Amino acid sequence: MEPRPPSVILVEPQLAENIGACARVMANFGLSDLRLVRPRDGWPQERAWASASGASWPLDEARVFDRLEDALADLQLVYATTARAREINLPVFTPREAAGELARAAASGLSVGLLFGGERAGLESDDVARAHAVVTVPVDPRFRSLNLAQAVALNAYEWRMTMADRPPEAFEPEQPPATHEAVEGFLGQLEGELHASGFLHPPEKTPSMLRNLRAVFLRAGLSDQEVRTLRGVVTALSKGRGKVLEKLAAKKAAKD
Amino acid sequence: MEPRPPSVILVEPQLAENIGACARVMANFGLSDLRLVRPRDGWPQERAWASASGASWPLDEARVFDRLEDALADLQLVYATTARAREINLPVFTPREAAGELARAAASGLSVGLLFGGERAGLESDDVARAHAVVTVPVDPRFRSLNLAQAVALNAYEWRMTMADRPPEAFEPEQPPATHEAVEGFLGQLEGELHASGFLHPPEKTPSMLRNLRAVFLRAGLSDQEVRTLRGVVTALSKGRGKVLEKLAAKKAAKD
Repeated sequence: MEPRPPSVILVEPQLAENIGACARVMANFGLSDLRLVRPRDGWPQERAWASASGASWPLDEARVFDRLEDALADLQLVYATTARAREINLPVFTPREAAGELARAAASGLSVGLLFGGERAGLESDDVARAHAVVTVPVDPRFRSLNLAQAVALNAYEWRMTMADRPPEAFEPEQPPATHEAVEGFLGQLEGELHASGFLHPPEKTPSMLRNLRAVFLRAGLSDQEVRTLRGVVTALSKGRGKVLEKLAAKKAAKD
Repeated sequence: MEPRPPSVILVEPQLAENIGACARVMANFGLSDLRLVRPRDGWPQERAWASASGASWPLDEARVFDRLEDALADLQLVYATTARAREINLPVFTPREAAGELARAAASGLSVGLLFGGERAGLESDDVARAHAVVTVPVDPRFRSLNLAQAVALNAYEWRMTMADRPPEAFEPEQPPATHEAVEGFLGQLEGELHASGFLHPPEKTPSMLRNLRAVFLRAGLSDQEVRTLRGVVTALSKGRGKVLEKLAAKKAAKD
């Protein structure tokens, strides 16, 4: 069974658009349990749904709390994200390290959560003090102001990367590489045509010219289809301009 | 010296707010070179600055292009981010893998870039076909719609994480890769000769045939010297068998 993804707890979020954007990135990375503590403009807010681009389920199911402790009540491991150093002696993780820790905990059946502060000032120290560790995104010290939904996105992304560090199946290469023999066949044809064309000149440079050309095509990791295409290219080019067209026209004429 | 961070190229971005949000996350993670190809509402747009939360420098310095090839002209390694599977045989990386590859390239002095499509439909296949590899964020297949600035954020974040981790020195490649412009020049010549030869037949298949051919040469990561060699190859082949030899013999005869 898949470990249950972290709950996302937003403390005093200000803009409904940002809450919607958080829901959207949660959906992008497989998270769904959203909890709101004292959202500034109340709840529900239509603009949240408008900015979620269809990721409505975290919003539909979102729960609202007056007190942070109630929002955290059922969770067993909670990390607080913050950009500022704190006077609290808690472990400090990057999102990647945090995802690893949370994943291990969730895999062993614990309920886990990520805590985020509001847009203007982030979490209060008293809020951070309710967490088991601090997560901080390694931003450039020259520009620390990270958007709320971006902070959620990076942590949710790291969760998903930890769960499965591989591209979706649709991206598995569809074309298997050609055999060495097929590539050699093409390279032999190319060399033959280059000899015939007089390109391999002067003779003493021929071996290194051929080696360099081979490297280009070997590096490309050609598929069978590509080898066939390239053979067609060499054939077409070496017949000289217009020859293939003439041949096609002749074929067509013969048919007609 | 620190490697130069990737340029961010946005193709037909629609909302100025999103361009501003991209600038903000670029600043969060130390990127600054922003290039815009045909922004829908023109440029500059005040709303971009308003949504950048003070990260104005990528916007102040942003350059606008009519054609993608011009926006890429000086770059040596470009990755295209896309959520959809393509019929193009290019390597596919996660943002983490891509950041590693780009960092290695940038550490050895190359100019690198990340290409992003517009909000509505992402990149066209012809745009992807100008890149050396594809980057795809491992989103949940049940909700793939990733906000543009989030996509930029995740890639910029991975760049910064990779920089923080990076080993002190990189091996210099022996031959620096050709610029995009040089590779495009060769591909243009090849396409021209293939048109002239009648190879690109039937016409409805021409675009995908050309995209597949492009992928072979982009994947190979051609050096300047290799581009020159390949241009010579195409020229020699397209003159037809023996023509170069005849010319050389004629030259020799004229000299004698």
